[in-house]
Amino acid sequence: MRIAVAVCLVIMSASAVWSVGDAVKKEFTPVSFANVTVDDAFWAPRMKTNRESTIPYEYQRCKDTGRIDGFRPDWKPGEGQTRHIFYDSDIAKWIEAASYSLATHPDPKLDKELDEVIANIASCQKPDGYLNSYYVNVEPTKHWTNLRDCHELYCAGHLIEAAVAHYQATGKRSLLDVMCRYADCIDRTFGTADGKKRGYCGHEEIELALVKLYRATGEKRYLELSKYFVDERGRKPYYYDSEAKARGEDPTQFWAKSYDYCQADKPLRDQREVTGHAVRAMYIYSAMTDLAAECQDSTLMPALNSIWDSVTLQRMYLTGGIGPSASNEGFTTAYDLPNESAYAETCAAIGLVFWSHRMLELGCDGRYADVMERALYNGALSGVSLDGTKFFYVNPLASHGQHERQDWFGCACCPPNIARLIASLGEYIYSQSDNDIAVHLYVQGSAKLKVGGQAVTLSQKTEYPWDGKVTISLAMDKPSTFGLRLRIPGWCRSYGLKVNGKPISVKPDLGYVRIERQWTGGDKVELDLAMPVERVYAHPLVQADVGRVAIQRGPIVYCIEGVDNKDIPIDRLVLPKSAELKSSFRKSLLGGVTTLAGSAEYADDAASGLYHSSEPKMKRCKITAIPYYAWCNRGKTDMAVWIAER
Amino acid sequence: MRIAVAVCLVIMSASAVWSVGDAVKKEFTPVSFANVTVDDAFWAPRMKTNRESTIPYEYQRCKDTGRIDGFRPDWKPGEGQTRHIFYDSDIAKWIEAASYSLATHPDPKLDKELDEVIANIASCQKPDGYLNSYYVNVEPTKHWTNLRDCHELYCAGHLIEAAVAHYQATGKRSLLDVMCRYADCIDRTFGTADGKKRGYCGHEEIELALVKLYRATGEKRYLELSKYFVDERGRKPYYYDSEAKARGEDPTQFWAKSYDYCQADKPLRDQREVTGHAVRAMYIYSAMTDLAAECQDSTLMPALNSIWDSVTLQRMYLTGGIGPSASNEGFTTAYDLPNESAYAETCAAIGLVFWSHRMLELGCDGRYADVMERALYNGALSGVSLDGTKFFYVNPLASHGQHERQDWFGCACCPPNIARLIASLGEYIYSQSDNDIAVHLYVQGSAKLKVGGQAVTLSQKTEYPWDGKVTISLAMDKPSTFGLRLRIPGWCRSYGLKVNGKPISVKPDLGYVRIERQWTGGDKVELDLAMPVERVYAHPLVQADVGRVAIQRGPIVYCIEGVDNKDIPIDRLVLPKSAELKSSFRKSLLGGVTTLAGSAEYADDAASGLYHSSEPKMKRCKITAIPYYAWCNRGKTDMAVWIAER
Repeated sequence: MRIAVAVCLVIMSASAVWSVGDAVKKEFTPVSFANVTVDDAFWAPRMKTNRESTIPYEYQRCKDTGRIDGFRPDWKPGEGQTRHIFYDSDIAKWIEAASYSLATHPDPKLDKELDEVIANIASCQKPDGYLNSYYVNVEPTKHWTNLRDCHELYCAGHLIEAAVAHYQATGKRSLLDVMCRYADCIDRTFGTADGKKRGYCGHEEIELALVKLYRATGEKRYLELSKYFVDERGRKPYYYDSEAKARGEDPTQFWAKSYDYCQADKPLRDQREVTGHAVRAMYIYSAMTDLAAECQDSTLMPALNSIWDSVTLQRMYLTGGIGPSASNEGFTTAYDLPNESAYAETCAAIGLVFWSHRMLELGCDGRYADVMERALYNGALSGVSLDGTKFFYVNPLASHGQHERQDWFGCACCPPNIARLIASLGEYIYSQSDNDIAVHLYVQGSAKLKVGGQAVTLSQKTEYPWDGKVTISLAMDKPSTFGLRLRIPGWCRSYGLKVNGKPISVKPDLGYVRIERQWTGGDKVELDLAMPVERVYAHPLVQADVGRVAIQRGPIVYCIEGVDNKDIPIDRLVLPKSAELKSSFRKSLLGGVTTLAGSAEYADDAASGLYHSSEPKMKRCKITAIPYYAWCNRGKTDMAVWIAER
Repeated sequence: MRIAVAVCLVIMSASAVWSVGDAVKKEFTPVSFANVTVDDAFWAPRMKTNRESTIPYEYQRCKDTGRIDGFRPDWKPGEGQTRHIFYDSDIAKWIEAASYSLATHPDPKLDKELDEVIANIASCQKPDGYLNSYYVNVEPTKHWTNLRDCHELYCAGHLIEAAVAHYQATGKRSLLDVMCRYADCIDRTFGTADGKKRGYCGHEEIELALVKLYRATGEKRYLELSKYFVDERGRKPYYYDSEAKARGEDPTQFWAKSYDYCQADKPLRDQREVTGHAVRAMYIYSAMTDLAAECQDSTLMPALNSIWDSVTLQRMYLTGGIGPSASNEGFTTAYDLPNESAYAETCAAIGLVFWSHRMLELGCDGRYADVMERALYNGALSGVSLDGTKFFYVNPLASHGQHERQDWFGCACCPPNIARLIASLGEYIYSQSDNDIAVHLYVQGSAKLKVGGQAVTLSQKTEYPWDGKVTISLAMDKPSTFGLRLRIPGWCRSYGLKVNGKPISVKPDLGYVRIERQWTGGDKVELDLAMPVERVYAHPLVQADVGRVAIQRGPIVYCIEGVDNKDIPIDRLVLPKSAELKSSFRKSLLGGVTTLAGSAEYADDAASGLYHSSEPKMKRCKITAIPYYAWCNRGKTDMAVWIAER
């Protein structure tokens, strides 16, 4: 029996207002992926594919294209290959993915490959600690001369993230020591002290990496260096101006015209709206959130909260994709969310997962988990094919068949980014505080954690995201009093809750129900999230979606794909308001998905003549919708997320 | 009492099929503007403004910019002015407009100005007859070296049209003789005979001009030269290729990539779809229609009929605007009719009036008159401001206020083109054949014509286009038997018809009712065309108009303009299906217009949040629609022709 507690949640709502004086607490800490097992029917097979196909495949692509050997001074680009200035970041993300995988699934071959790659990287390090395959081997006299455009500190940041992941996964300090020496070099080079460069990277990344390095090593200098990069960014006179002049360039000729392209037109604390390149934006907001937590720096919160709203209340696709424009790989104006031309880079959705996750740790507010879940299950996951070896760089919400997954990219940031996200999925499911366990995502598996001084094993059984029933079992040595917070997703309008078989009624607070009691080993909590097919409407200022509706069920956004709907013009399909869509799980389709089926119609185009005094005749048809993330796994095809509704 | 004969006409229907063997007859001849007076409340004030403001204004602009003095060898471009290769065509169209005006409204000052301009032009003529202000004075060694790009024969064509108009208006041969000498020079230069160039102009125009010159002079060589240009166009090997090579250029580097840009990728008779630059297309089809009639050449008809359908059934805006794309000032693919980015050049709609008018003369088929009327009252007329001194080059069907009428253009083809159309409006109202008078347009005024050997004066009394009642009175010396054809417009679904007060019932044939009887001086025919407010729907393949409706009343297409609908978001207005729009004539608004008023609604954008589980709340509002042609006469403003309908 389900006790339905009716809640009608606006899917997105505005942020609470922080005042600058408020203290920022990092209440919650993620339970590390290393302590979480995932054995569900949705993510576990994806993580297996990631481990067995994507990671080896990307290793080979990195090897073939010189992203590994490029660290050696004698490496020369092969035919058809151009050496990018940010090759290092691709292999760094691969190291990170491979390390996460190794932590949960030991693999001697992969371990050896990692050692070899790391040895290659280490061989490139200069005596002062400097390490960048491009600037060491290709333009050795130019380092630190173009921070704005050349991704030097960005590459360093990714290598630092890789080093931390490798150290945590294997306990080996091989890459960590190398990167500490490089971080020390960077620390000697940049800062406000006399003789130091007051620069910061055009592509943010190092800021969040340095926080990770601080957490892994306890070395406060790294945290302070991160803080320096955040504090310095956007200050006038602009560093990028003086740097360009030093190169003999006219800074007004910067192609992107304004430094808001890289969130550096004004100090970060003064920014209130998201601008520019979407991935850069997500990475710097992630770092700012980390710094707010680590330094209890509430002065960062007004910017973070306002920018959060400007992203999620005005500039985010239903899929969690962000950055509609190809020209800047980024943001434009509020409500500008075109479907077919959507850029919505895979890396940007991944970046939104990173940032949401960090915001969530500040106060366990379900708004952040909602966005994290939305991006994870939709706009990020769409970036990789079901077989794990084909990738989307852009993730449109409509297609006339012009889009197709690619097996690699010259600028290959997305493939290893999605690989590291999937490999570390366990990290996003649970958090713990002194007194609470929080369950953010419903994924079958278990977690080992510590709460109220007590080791607790929490196990989930669920068919999520296809079914909203979740059973949570607790195991512990002796009874213990703590709070168990279970997320009631923003998409969910009614749910039932039982403890040890007895219905209980708890009002959700900030998107979570909290059950505090003395828990005993063997206690069981059952949550039943109603998961009907829902129609979703966009804000009226989203021109592209006026008169249109999207379909969501649970966290999954659906789309209509041509391959399931032959001879139906997807781009002029109309879903009658009264049409019911029925869900059914199809085990053999697309790795097992719940599809939706129902009746729709479309205007008959048989009539000749351009203009008529009556509406076009409608033809009825049967339609099938599939999860958006799974589209374009069966060849090029038409697709639409937003369907006209009458 | 109105006898309503219910007819439900598809607004556009497909052409009858001509077979190549069919004879082409030019059954009807237009009644010359010189024999038609216009004294209605709609066109007469416009023609007065054209005469008193536009024509003097354009004279001054042509003078100021060197378009007149540029014929003299000593003229040098002034500051900020660049001399175009097709300056001659602008002044030529002005001569044409001024001549038409002079024919109906004698004006010694204008007559003198014309003489001076013509003397200037004549002074530029070379001994062999060649005449082009650019090639005589700027690049004297280059003439006939780049027919593809340099508009040389195009300028000649416009000067020929000017010469014919001036001759017919004034009886003076001053320009006519000059242009006959030039036409003779062109005739000696181009053709299939040995030693002649087998070229033709990249911008068609001379073809229709030579037919006019033939009709004015009776010289068959001019007709044959026109036929040569039509026959030669698009033949392989391409003349433009050899001409480019002769200039030392690579013909494959032609910027437009294909000669279909200028309708020259294949022989005109083999063409079945409209392509390329819209004005060029309209001018060549006009010439082809003239040639089909004059030469009884049925081999031109399959192309003309098929292209007519491809324009009017697939590629024409509701306003009669054509050519949606700025990049080629022309046509794209079927049903590609974006509203806000519509190019729809004023000259192209005027060209469509020219072509429709010529097709209409072939067989008095109302389909052609419907398109002619649509373009005339909407997409062409929108090209000039109410005060006659500001112009639209492009005529979008939606705006966010970025569009504004300009007082002149570097490429100033449109202003004198709309001036010559309005000055010669009388020509489009009536046609005569041996036995019939046909009334195509309802415009108060009178016409002197000859039918069945009898001089007849026909007078119209009407408030058209604001009211569908038309009273036609006939005056003649003695009774005469002939047919009177009255057009039942495609937009009209019921009408009443009376002769001398007695209702009669006649079924329309090809869009006209024909009343044949012995007519007597004083006979009166009353036609009452029902003119309710109508909703119009586009073909379902017109993506821009899916789920949208446009409003038309009689021949007038309406739009919603921001200035009349303050604080209403025009771009997301929704017209409920049930909303009634009431018409009322407002004498003091926009020179006197019938406006439409009613209730509509729009989505409230006050709610925060991007995605919601219910439709946006709607706010009701009152709206006022004005005729499309009159928009943007009160400053920059939002505008929409196609409104969402629910």
